This record gives sequence, C-alpha cells and structure tokens, in this order.
Amino acid sequence: MLGQIDVNKSMQKKDYDKKMEKLEVRFGELQRACKEKNIPITVVFEGLDAAGKGTMINRMIQSLDPRGFKVFTLGREKEDEAMRPYFWRFFTKIPERGRMHIFDQSWYKGGYEKDISEKEVLDFEQMLTEDGMIIVKFFLMISKEEQKRRLDKLEKNSETSWRVTGQDKENNKNYEKCLKKYDRLLVHTDTANAPWTVVEGTDKLYATCKIISTMVERMERAVKEVTKKEEEKKIIKDTGDEMEKQEETTSFRNGVLQGIDLSKTIEHDEYKKKKKDLQKRLLTLQNKMYLKRVPVVLAFEGWDAGGKGGAIKRLTQAMDPRGYEVVPVAAPNDIEKAHHYLWRFWDKIPKAGHMAIFDRTWYGRVLVERIEGFAAEEEWSRAYSEINNMEEQFVNAGYIVLKFWIHIDKEEQERRFHERENTPEKQWKITEEDWRNRAKWDEYEKAVDEMIVRTSTADAPWIVVEGNSKYYARIKVLETVVNALEQRLM
Amino acid sequence: MLGQIDVNKSMQKKDYDKKMEKLEVRFGELQRACKEKNIPITVVFEGLDAAGKGTMINRMIQSLDPRGFKVFTLGREKEDEAMRPYFWRFFTKIPERGRMHIFDQSWYKGGYEKDISEKEVLDFEQMLTEDGMIIVKFFLMISKEEQKRRLDKLEKNSETSWRVTGQDKENNKNYEKCLKKYDRLLVHTDTANAPWTVVEGTDKLYATCKIISTMVERMERAVKEVTKKEEEKKIIKDTGDEMEKQEETTSFRNGVLQGIDLSKTIEHDEYKKKKKDLQKRLLTLQNKMYLKRVPVVLAFEGWDAGGKGGAIKRLTQAMDPRGYEVVPVAAPNDIEKAHHYLWRFWDKIPKAGHMAIFDRTWYGRVLVERIEGFAAEEEWSRAYSEINNMEEQFVNAGYIVLKFWIHIDKEEQERRFHERENTPEKQWKITEEDWRNRAKWDEYEKAVDEMIVRTSTADAPWIVVEGNSKYYARIKVLETVVNALEQRLM
Repeated sequence: MLGQIDVNKSMQKKDYDKKMEKLEVRFGELQRACKEKNIPITVVFEGLDAAGKGTMINRMIQSLDPRGFKVFTLGREKEDEAMRPYFWRFFTKIPERGRMHIFDQSWYKGGYEKDISEKEVLDFEQMLTEDGMIIVKFFLMISKEEQKRRLDKLEKNSETSWRVTGQDKENNKNYEKCLKKYDRLLVHTDTANAPWTVVEGTDKLYATCKIISTMVERMERAVKEVTKKEEEKKIIKDTGDEMEKQEETTSFRNGVLQGIDLSKTIEHDEYKKKKKDLQKRLLTLQNKMYLKRVPVVLAFEGWDAGGKGGAIKRLTQAMDPRGYEVVPVAAPNDIEKAHHYLWRFWDKIPKAGHMAIFDRTWYGRVLVERIEGFAAEEEWSRAYSEINNMEEQFVNAGYIVLKFWIHIDKEEQERRFHERENTPEKQWKITEEDWRNRAKWDEYEKAVDEMIVRTSTADAPWIVVEGNSKYYARIKVLETVVNALEQRLM
Repeated sequence: MLGQIDVNKSMQKKDYDKKMEKLEVRFGELQRACKEKNIPITVVFEGLDAAGKGTMINRMIQSLDPRGFKVFTLGREKEDEAMRPYFWRFFTKIPERGRMHIFDQSWYKGGYEKDISEKEVLDFEQMLTEDGMIIVKFFLMISKEEQKRRLDKLEKNSETSWRVTGQDKENNKNYEKCLKKYDRLLVHTDTANAPWTVVEGTDKLYATCKIISTMVERMERAVKEVTKKEEEKKIIKDTGDEMEKQEETTSFRNGVLQGIDLSKTIEHDEYKKKKKDLQKRLLTLQNKMYLKRVPVVLAFEGWDAGGKGGAIKRLTQAMDPRGYEVVPVAAPNDIEKAHHYLWRFWDKIPKAGHMAIFDRTWYGRVLVERIEGFAAEEEWSRAYSEINNMEEQFVNAGYIVLKFWIHIDKEEQERRFHERENTPEKQWKITEEDWRNRAKWDEYEKAVDEMIVRTSTADAPWIVVEGNSKYYARIKVLETVVNALEQRLM
C-alpha cells in the first residue's frame, strides 16, 4: 500500500481555503447527525516518526463540537495496563454510541516494535464495526529525506530536542526496512469495514484536507446506511414478522444438560469437613496467586434459584477481601447499553494476582438476550466466537478462566420458588419475572446446550455443576477452583 | 468444544425410523429448493480416526438426487497439487451455485499433522459464505476405548487390516493430546457463518440422524433468508434507488495516476537494441525458473488501446511456449458466473516452474464490475482484501507476482481509437463498447487509483507503466520482469 504513494503531493493555499470552508461545515453537521443516529466513531492516527500526527489531530478537532469527542494519546504502557491483557487499555476506551474517540497511536503501535497479533486486531475491529461503529484509520507518510529534515530541525531547537530519540534516527536510517514492515501490517489489516487511508504528509494543507475529506465521506456513508436500514425496517416489518413465524425444524441439538446426573448428593457431615479443608487450601492459594501475579476469572451462570449465590459465598468466606471482587451482573444501565456489550466486562477484568467472580456474565448475550430478543440473531450468533476470542486473550495473558453452570431440574426449581414464597426472609428473592423466565425453560435449555458446546474450550472450560443438592454443588465448585489453582501454582 | 461431548449418545431403532422418514423427505425437498434458489453447499466431514466419516457420508447421500452432489475424498497430496498453493486443490473444487460438494476430509486435514494457517482458513470460508455459500462442518467423535475397539476389529480382519496404520495406533495412545489439539482448531474456526457441529459417533443411528437434521436446519434457514432478501429487494427497490441518487462527497482520493509522467519515451534504435538484449536474458531466466521450480504470475491491466497486447507479445516472443501460458480474460461464461468470482483464476494458476500471463485479471472485480454495477458495493469493497489474501498465498508458496497497469491519457486513447477505425486491419479491435467505456473515464480513473493503492503490496506490487510511448512501455515491462526474475534466480 505504501509503495505507490507520492508523498510530495501538495495544494495551493487558496484551493485549500475554498475546499475547507465547505468541508468544515459539513463535518460539523455530520458530527451532529452521527450523534442523533447513535453512531460511535473511532479514529486512529498512525504513521512514520515526525510525519505530523499531533498537528493533524489538532487541525481536525477545530471543526468539532468539543462535547462530542475525546483525544487519547498513547504513552508508555502503564502499570495497571501491563497487568491486564493487551486490548484492555483500548477496549475500556471505546466511544459510546454517538461520540468520537481519536487515538494518537493505537493498538497498532506495537506493530512497530514487536509483532502484534493480527488475528486479535482483526477480531477486535470486526467486533466493533459489526456493532455499528465507524473506524477510520489514517497512516501518515513522509519521505526519508523529509523525515531527516524534520528530525534535524527538532533536534537543533533546544525546546524540542528531547523529542528526538536514538530510535527515531535509527528508524530514519532503516527507512526502507521500516516501510516494508508497515506495508505488511497495513495490508493485513485493511478490511472493507475498517480500511486504511494513507495520507501524504509533506504538505500539511494537503494532508489536512484529505483527512477531513475522508472523515466526511465515511460519516456521510454511515449516516446514509443507518437511515436506509431504518427505512427498510419500517417497510418490511410485517413481512419479516411473517417469515419468523414459520415453524422451526426441530433441531438435533448438542444436548449436554440431558445427560447430567442430578441425584448426586453428599452428607452434611462430610460437607462440613470438606468445606473447611477446601477453604483453608483456598486461602493459601490466594496468597500464592498474589505473589506469583496470576489473575483468575470465575464466571457463574445457572437457573434462577439454582444456588449461584450460595456457591459464591462459600468461595469468598475464607478469602482475603483485598484480593477478590464479586461482580454482580444485572441488566445493563444506559451508559453500558451505549457501548459494545462486552465493554462493561472488560472494565471489570481483574489485574494480575487478583480474582474476579462474576455472578452472571457476558454469556447473557446468548442466554437472556437471545431468548428475550434483546439481541438479534445475527448479533447473538456471532457472540460465540467473540466470547471465545475474548477468553482466549485472557488465557494467553496468563489468566485462569473457569466457567460454572449450576444446573437443577424444573421440579427442583418449582420447589425452591415455592419455598421462597413461603419463607418471609426469602420472599424478596422471588419475583414475577422468575416465573416468566421459568415458562421459557425449554428455550433456555436449548440456548444453554448450544452455549456450553460452542464455548467450552480446552483452556476456558465450562464446568456443569449438579445442583439439586446444594451441599454437593458447593463442594464441587470449591474443589474445582482449588484444583485448578493448585495445578498452576504448586 | 470437545470436552463436553457425551460420545455415547444413542437412539432406538424405531425412533430413528420415525424421525428419518420425515427428515429424508424434507432433505430431498430442500436440495431442490437450494438448486432453484442457486445456493451452493459445501459439507465438510472431519473427525477422529475410525469415527465413521465414510459411513456417514454414504448414509447422507442416500436421500439425495445424485445429479446434484459430488463427493471428494481427500487422499495424499498429488503432484500437481504440491506444485501450487495449498488452497488450490480446494478452491478448484468448490461447488457451483445450486450444487452440493461433500468433502471426506478437507482443508482441515493438515491441522492434524501440521499447523495450517488459521487466517487462510478463515479468509477462505468467509469469502465463500459472503458469496452466499452454505458451509456445514461436521466433526465426528468417539471415545478412546471405542476407537481402540474399532481399530482392533479392523486389524483382525485380513481384508481391512491395511487400513490401520502405526500413526492411527499412536494417535489412539495419545488420544487426550490429540483431542486438545483438535479442540483448539475447532474453536478457532467456529464462526457464525461456518459453525462446527460435533457429532457423537458411537451410535450410528444417532449420528446419522443428527447429521441429516443439521443439514435440514442449515438449508431451511438459507432458503428462508434468500427468499426474505428477494422480498426485501422487491419492496425497497424504489427507496433504495432514491438513496443512491444523493450526491456523493467529492472523495479526496489517493491519486496515483495524476502524478505519472506520460512524456517518457525512447528512440527506435535504442528500443530495438534493448529489446533484443532483454529477450535473450528472459529466455535464460525461463530455463532457470523451470529448473528451480519457481512459478511466476504476471497480471496486465490498463486502458483500452493502452498497449497490453503489444507488451505481452514482446515478452512471449522469445520464450519457450511450453513454459508459459497467456490467459485472456473476457466476461465470465455461465459456468464461471455460477462460482465465486476468483474461482476461474485459481483454475489458471501456473504450477511450479511455469509462468501465467493474464491479459486482464481478477481486478475486473474492482474495475469493470464496480463501475458497471455487476458487483454490489458490499461485494467489490471486500474484494481488495480477498485479492490481497489470494496473492499473499501465492507469494507464501514461492510465486513471483507482478502486476502492470499500462497507463495512457485520454487524448492518446482517442488518437488510437481513431487510428484503429481508419486502419482496415485494426478495425476489429475497436467496438461501440470501447467508446462507452471511454465515456466513464473519470469513474474508472477513481477506481484504478483506489485499486493500486489498496492492493500494491511489498511482495505483489503494481507497476504503473507510462504507456503513451509504446516503445517505452514495452521496454519497461520487459525490464521489470527480467529484473525481478534475476533478483530471485541469480
């Protein structure tokens, strides 16, 4: 992509003024249109050293409403960032719908010094664009001679000389080699939905004009597309509904749940003894975890009244509260809804040496959101691989990931519901919604089966816990966690 | 994905008969529906040794119209396959629209013995599903004990004992390790559009029923989706047209062509001398290419009357015709139209030691098909990365890839058109269509600029050839080819 660029393109000041006058007005209008249509925008600036990224960002934001954008300058990796997977620092910074975030260097920065994983980059961008985000990526380029000229000038000036590093000079010497490396990176990550725009950076008027013009084009197109989709939705709503109602083939599903032996149980005495022993070992392991900086993610899902809360309580009882966090997950709030559905979970990822226990999880996407229609089929059906990708990033960054499905049968649930209704101190735990969910048991069961099969990976497995006996379930959870930690830490 | 499978699932013969009676009828109906709706289907069977892939394929095809499907059994890599990039053997075997191709082992086979490139696999499948293909992937699984039992049984029978290899026994011993490897592969390649179905293979009734049931479900859904899309297209046609007509922002394009110096020329004497010398070197290089088994792909694009034919002629004049093929590319025929647009080019890829010269190329997708609307925007805009992926596969397999854009300006074209009209022996070369294309010069120029920037990679570069002087252009082409070959071969 870089081989054919004529870096010396330029334009006259009067052409620039004429063109920009129109462009800036349109740019501002489109910022408002994107806000109204709830379109999030991510803008990435990368480029050669001294190619003018900072200058370009400054010029770009002149035309924007400052309440609608934010600029992130990527410095050195901070300590809290180094303690989490690579994409944590970016995922937590994605814009909410209707806003624009501008990155002065981004997830591509690593590509200069070390090999970043192209698969992770492509997965990340695809996930966001499929969720409706505009991603605009600029690569600023200047010639070897121009780069040398600029570096020399910076160095001569005592106020700016600190900005020129030995690495910069080295890169200038190896200009051709650098270019070839960037070229490969750009080609591999130039996709239909998140394409690169190479910007000829010698003449700043030309570069500014090209950048704003590209922004306008991309935003214009996105607004058109969203408008068109809204229209289509209105028009075809009836037809669509008609289609959906056609009877479904009985799917021959991967039934994991059918084979679960729910009669498993354990005596109270043995329960008490085992619990005490396991909790003691867990505390020791928590210290080891901390010292060896191993982070742990525990995910809990299961039927209403299945006993998630009880199992979590037996885990945390003996642990040091400074080392773990229980994250209860309810319906997303407005800010969370305005982001990609995984954003609020990335935000809660534990740092090295810590544990996060999720009481309900990101799997809501393929359970409640699927069943209740909060996510469209095209959305939840791509969630399996999005979730696998996310968990794999955790595992590759050294995390222990365990996922528990606490399983009970329909009769046991009914018994527990009635018990809650008849016990004054438990009545708060049972609502109309629980009964409504229960009516959809079969649909949920199908969704759970599919979820477990498609997201149970060798390094982030699902553990199905036989939950009709609460004692049995709690011990199985404790035991699984202790064993997994011992295997890694001892 | 494999960890949670209960391989011993089974079903009663009478349940099987009852279920299959309905399923087989529906399966046959859907085969006809897919044919009618022009939906191509690719079915992949993978699995553990002795898990019953062959048996399952035989049962599946019982219900099908034999004119509509074909089974491919993946044997050892043949010599002509080894002489081309990995995906050549698969790309050339994809079904045309409306047909079903069934693969007894597939591109995943390599995953057992060596690391296949997951990026290539994902790119390949995504390219096909985006083009409307159904891809159904089955993984057959049995337990370690069952596998041993089956291998022992095969070995004891003198007629089948040859089928059991030392590798099979080794794999059985390392069952858990194998499983973990497969699991990773399956998880990485389980996508929303081409998901894996793991089939519990111990009970053949159960397995058959699950396979047919999955096929029915996938085909049912695809037929519904295509029908729905047809409906939508009808309904929103007017709205859509309206939207398209809105004025486009003047795009600030990556102008490569504007900077070309078309005044470059060369004297006739020098031309003759250089040509003679270069052609001599080219013949020597062709022999070297053959001996060192290096394959070469030359791609020619350019304006009508730009001089592609003349340049190609000067290349081939001196070469041994057994070592190269000139591939003229016209509008696709019916068989070609019924496949993915890249299929007809994969079919012409030269084998090791040979050269293919394409007179017009796969870039038609982003030139004529884009301008004339033969490809929708969502189709041609993803073609850049599809093409980059393809060429990268060539380069990784050791191919030399050079792409020439023969450039002339609008005035020169007009001069040549008139010359053709006024010269009796050249009149066949000029048609009404040439004039029509010329009227869209500006649109084409924009498309060429975008093409060159987005697909000029370090290893498969575009060479823009200044073509107003035919002598100059021919020498530049010859020189470029000779230099590239010398660099690799000398």
